Amino acid sequence: MSNITTDICIVGAGPVGLFAVFEAGLLKMRCHVVDALPAVGGQLTEIYPKKPIYDIPGFPEILAGDLVQNLQKQIAPFHPTFTLGERVEHLEKQEDGSFIVTTVAGTEIACKAVVIAGGLGSFEPRKPAIENLESFENKGVTYMVRDPEDFKDKRVVLAGGGDSALDWAIYLAGICKELTLVHRGTSFRGAPESAAKVTSMAEEGQIKLILKSNVTEVHGSHKLDKVTVMVNNESPYEIETDYFVPLFGLVPKLGPLENWGLELEKNAIVVNTTDYSTNIPGVYAIGDINTYPGKLKLILCGFHEAALMAQSAYNILYPNKKFVLKYTTVNGIQEL
Amino acid sequence: MSNITTDICIVGAGPVGLFAVFEAGLLKMRCHVVDALPAVGGQLTEIYPKKPIYDIPGFPEILAGDLVQNLQKQIAPFHPTFTLGERVEHLEKQEDGSFIVTTVAGTEIACKAVVIAGGLGSFEPRKPAIENLESFENKGVTYMVRDPEDFKDKRVVLAGGGDSALDWAIYLAGICKELTLVHRGTSFRGAPESAAKVTSMAEEGQIKLILKSNVTEVHGSHKLDKVTVMVNNESPYEIETDYFVPLFGLVPKLGPLENWGLELEKNAIVVNTTDYSTNIPGVYAIGDINTYPGKLKLILCGFHEAALMAQSAYNILYPNKKFVLKYTTVNGIQEL
Ligand SMILES: Cc1cc2nc3c(=O)[nH]c(=O)nc-3n(C[C@H](O)[C@H](O)[C@H](O)COP(=O)(O)OP(=O)(O)OC[C@H]3O[C@@H](n4cnc5c(N)ncnc54)[C@H](O)[C@@H]3O)c2cc1C
Ligand SMILES: Cc1cc2nc3c(=O)[nH]c(=O)nc-3n(C[C@H](O)[C@H](O)[C@H](O)COP(=O)(O)OP(=O)(O)OC[C@H]3O[C@@H](n4cnc5c(N)ncnc54)[C@H](O)[C@@H]3O)c2cc1C
Repeated sequence: MSNITTDICIVGAGPVGLFAVFEAGLLKMRCHVVDALPAVGGQLTEIYPKKPIYDIPGFPEILAGDLVQNLQKQIAPFHPTFTLGERVEHLEKQEDGSFIVTTVAGTEIACKAVVIAGGLGSFEPRKPAIENLESFENKGVTYMVRDPEDFKDKRVVLAGGGDSALDWAIYLAGICKELTLVHRGTSFRGAPESAAKVTSMAEEGQIKLILKSNVTEVHGSHKLDKVTVMVNNESPYEIETDYFVPLFGLVPKLGPLENWGLELEKNAIVVNTTDYSTNIPGVYAIGDINTYPGKLKLILCGFHEAALMAQSAYNILYPNKKFVLKYTTVNGIQEL
Repeated sequence: MSNITTDICIVGAGPVGLFAVFEAGLLKMRCHVVDALPAVGGQLTEIYPKKPIYDIPGFPEILAGDLVQNLQKQIAPFHPTFTLGERVEHLEKQEDGSFIVTTVAGTEIACKAVVIAGGLGSFEPRKPAIENLESFENKGVTYMVRDPEDFKDKRVVLAGGGDSALDWAIYLAGICKELTLVHRGTSFRGAPESAAKVTSMAEEGQIKLILKSNVTEVHGSHKLDKVTVMVNNESPYEIETDYFVPLFGLVPKLGPLENWGLELEKNAIVVNTTDYSTNIPGVYAIGDINTYPGKLKLILCGFHEAALMAQSAYNILYPNKKFVLKYTTVNGIQEL
């Protein structure tokens, strides 16, 4: 927990949040960037670091991870500061028009403008629609495997058919007392090698594989002790278990931003295309998290949005200075 | 003179026109690009090919000329075609909603949508405010030196204090019968070496140098025969001459585009930020040539505009297909 004072607080260190540091820096505004994830780069780092992107202008092809590295290099002269691994929870406007942004860990950032570059929001596990499921959370029901040792010598029911379900089934089978994988289909969406491995482990009895089935009920008094599995939508039966781990992927949720009084539309923040400002003066939203007529969730669009945002934020920080656009080619880059 | 049929005709081969080929190509639309200049790249090629740009996202630094080359490589899979060295003069909408674009050389391009990426327009000479000046054009008054031999053994009055006035004064002094350089100031804006050379040639009598003066009148019956020079804003006198060549630099002019019925504002085309369409359905304007609230004349903004334009043009070309955004990382690039 610490206190930071800066010109602009950027929520989200995806490609768009990073480039916003650059556009702000050109106008001599300092930035502090906060991200819930432990690394910068947003979706590019989390989801596809090793995949090539083809539509970044000027790069016939660039690996997502390399684009993130280049952006870090590009913003380095402006010496941004970062708080990583902390989700932003609160936004509070002060009487003098400035803001206090607070993270889940209590870090407070005092700033004159806030730029929300939160992408699709924070990724949260997709929860199956099972009655009472949430009341068993942390009492046998969990949506991610944080530490595999938690499951040592336990009975575990996993559900899902993607990579994460397959990979954990293979891994946990060697640790648990009994591992059951419940999947609603007969084929898997995950990597073919992993699917083949799970099938052969099931044949060898290391994994109990239940196909064309769903977990439909959870039972227990203080904690989970069994789940009901419905096979083929008709014949239900019960499995005694210590853990039930539904692995149905992650869904992005706006999360805390939902309560900041921002105008929202379909899980995105409504902005004005003149400067990508939100309905709260001094708060901007750029990149995947915003929406406006014609919006495309593309990296290059977020870059443009960052440029227009910076001009407008400059007017908030320096209401009496008249801003004149200067080309970088003509003026170069001045370190901050 | 030739006839071309394509999906989209792009007027202007600057960085934004080039990238528009890419965004159109992703949606399987073919492009033909026309530029008045003999090379692609617009201002980057014409004005600052060897200078570094610092605000292209993902490039901490890139030479303007290299950015143009990269863009050419990026659009290569979509095999755009080009007409270079021909200014577009006419835009005509056909009954079926398609367009015929015609160049000054008579090349006709039939297309379904037109994208104007004309930058600052065509560069035209800046003309001094002298009464009747235009009536002497090509009768002794000219704004550029096309062929120095035209001035052989003639009396020539040049006006201006920049590089072009200095360089031509030095060059033409060796060809003309008599060379006068009129400049309103006492120091020159051009390169110091050239200024020094002009001063020494004036001392040696090779150039007649008239400082703190302006040409204020032009005289002649069928053709120019003398000009009036006002020294120090007070004592006018006349100089007999065959040619008067004001060299006051180039100013960009929308040029022919001004007569296409487009809504204009301060020498730019007004567009809608949803898709960067103009008031003529099927005609888009992107890059430096357009204007909208918040507009910044930056390369990266033109890239964004190209992306949104392409989605909208797709609806014009394929009104019945529902478009779904696909990431290049997921779908790759399909050659056209
Ligand atoms: C598989 C795949 C392929 C893609 N391919 C392409 C492509 O080819 N071209 C293209 O242009 N785009 C592509 N995209 C989309 C592209 O990744 C996004 O447009 C881009 O990541 C958006 O950047 P951003 O900075 O707005 O958000 P993100 O990259 O989503 O980053 C947002 C960051 O904000 C953080 N955050 C959110 N809420 C909070 C909070 N409350 N507190 C703290 N931090 C928070 C998140 O943790 C995240 O790190 C692809 C996406 C995927 C998934
Ligand atoms: C010295 C300098 C430094 C700069 N530095 C930067 C920088 O650091 N960062 C940045 O983002 N921007 C910078 N810019 C601005 C940048 O160059 C422009 O934003 C960019 O060139 C705009 O691209 P464009 O494709 O819209 O137009 P242009 O590059 O102007 O190209 C337009 C093309 O259209 C053609 N054309 C016009 N009318 C017609 C017609 N009727 N028929 C046929 N062809 C036509 C022209 O010949 C031209 O080739 C700088 C500009 C200058 C001059």
